[in-house]
Amino acid sequence: MEVVLIGSGSVATNLGLALHSKGITIKQVYSQNPRNAEILAKKLDADYISDISDIYMNADIYFYALKDSALKSMLRKIDIPSGIQVHTGGSIPMSEFDGHSTRYGVFYPLQTFSMDKIIDFSGVPICIEASNMDVQNKLVDLANLLSDKIFLMSSEQRRKIHLAAVFACNFTNYMYDIAFNILQGSGVPFEIMHPLITETAEKIKTITPFNAQTGPAVRMDVKTTSRHISMLSRKRDFKAVYKLLTKSIYTSHKK
Amino acid sequence: MEVVLIGSGSVATNLGLALHSKGITIKQVYSQNPRNAEILAKKLDADYISDISDIYMNADIYFYALKDSALKSMLRKIDIPSGIQVHTGGSIPMSEFDGHSTRYGVFYPLQTFSMDKIIDFSGVPICIEASNMDVQNKLVDLANLLSDKIFLMSSEQRRKIHLAAVFACNFTNYMYDIAFNILQGSGVPFEIMHPLITETAEKIKTITPFNAQTGPAVRMDVKTTSRHISMLSRKRDFKAVYKLLTKSIYTSHKK
Repeated sequence: MEVVLIGSGSVATNLGLALHSKGITIKQVYSQNPRNAEILAKKLDADYISDISDIYMNADIYFYALKDSALKSMLRKIDIPSGIQVHTGGSIPMSEFDGHSTRYGVFYPLQTFSMDKIIDFSGVPICIEASNMDVQNKLVDLANLLSDKIFLMSSEQRRKIHLAAVFACNFTNYMYDIAFNILQGSGVPFEIMHPLITETAEKIKTITPFNAQTGPAVRMDVKTTSRHISMLSRKRDFKAVYKLLTKSIYTSHKK
Repeated sequence: MEVVLIGSGSVATNLGLALHSKGITIKQVYSQNPRNAEILAKKLDADYISDISDIYMNADIYFYALKDSALKSMLRKIDIPSGIQVHTGGSIPMSEFDGHSTRYGVFYPLQTFSMDKIIDFSGVPICIEASNMDVQNKLVDLANLLSDKIFLMSSEQRRKIHLAAVFACNFTNYMYDIAFNILQGSGVPFEIMHPLITETAEKIKTITPFNAQTGPAVRMDVKTTSRHISMLSRKRDFKAVYKLLTKSIYTSHKK
C-alpha cells in the first residue's frame, strides 16, 4: 500500500510516523513550505514536494492533514484519478469531497498532537467515515494496523466529538495554564499540581464527571469563592472565568 | 503514636486509611453523625464518638479534617492539653489555631479525595506548616511515612495552591462534565474521550500549559468557534463558557 501525505503539521507528522512504523509506504509528503515537507519526508523515507502539481497520481490513499480552512482550496487544485482521499479533521464534514471524487472518507484520530511529543497510536481512537463500503473496509483495515479503538462515525457525530474535545482538551489545558500563572512567583513549583491533575483525569474513568465534581462551587461556599476572586488578576479575564464557572457549576448541582 | 481524627468525610477517610496502613494507631474518630463516625472507625480499628466532649485527651496528633467553615466553631468546643493539633485544609490559614494551643500546624494533602475511590498516598504532595520546629519535625516525620513529596509551605503559599487547584481540578472536571453533556444522546460513548483527557493531563508534565495550548481559540478560527457556539445549549451557561474561554485563550496567545 502506498500513501501520500498532504500536510506537514502535527497531525501529518504523528500519523505519518505511525503509518511508517507499521510498514506502510509513505510515497510523498506535500507541504507549501519545502523545508517542512523535507523535514517530515526524511523521517518517513518519503519524497517531498511543495508544488501540488507534482503530486504522485497512483497512491492508494491520500491523507489531507490540513487546517480546516485549507482543505477546500487544496481540493480545487487536485484531481486524483482513483486513490481514496481522506481528511483527518474533526469538524470538517465528509461532504467536503462531494464532486471531487467518489472514493473518499474521513480518518480522524481523536488526540492532541504536537510536533515535539510523538504519540503512541495504539490507544488513539480513530473515527472513520466513508463514501462506500469498499472504502470503509480499506480505511478500517488501515486503522486496525495503528490502533485497537476504531469507531464508525457520521459527520454529525464527529462534529460533536470535536466540540467535546475543545472542552476536554483545549479548555482543560487552559485551566492548567491559569493554575500555572497563579503559582508563578509564589515559590511553589507547578510540579506540585501534577498528581492532582493526573488523578482528576483518572477519576472520570470510573465515575461520571458530574459525580466527581468537588470544590467550593458545588456547595457555593461564598466565603472561599469571594476570597479566591479577590486573589485573581483581572488580566486575561481570570476573575470573570472563575465567576462564570463557579456559577455554572453551582447551577448544575443545586437540587 | 496515637492519632485522633476529627471528621469522617473524604479527606478523613483517605488520610485515616493511609495512616492506619502504615501502622499508626487511630485512637478515635469523631463525627457529628454517629453512623458516619462508626463506619470510618470500623475501617481503622478505632473507637468512635459523636459527642466532642468525649474526646480522648492524650493523643499525639489531632487531625481536623473538616469543612473550612466548621473548624472555627469546633475549636471553640475543644481544649486539648498537649497534643499537636493540625488541620488539613488548603485555604485555612494556620493562624486559625491562635489562642487555642501553642503546638499546631497544617497537614494539607494536595489531592482530590472521594469516599469511594481510595487514594494511594505515596504520590500525594503533603504541604506542612507548623507553629515551631519541634512540631514541624514531628509532622514531617509522619508525612514521610505516607509520601515522598513533602513541602514546607506558608499559609500564603497554601492559599495560592488551593486556588490553583480549583482551576486544575474542580474547573477541569467541569470541562469534562460539559464534554460528557455534549456527547449525551449522540450515540458516541464518553469513553472515546479518555485517551485525549489522559494525554492532555500528561502533556503538561513535559511542556508548559501555555506551549501545550491548541485548538480553534489560539488562532481565533472564527468559522469553527461560531459553529461550536451555535451547537451549544444555552442551559448551564455552556455558550457563555465557550465564548469567555475562547476570548481569554486568544487574548493570552496573540502576539
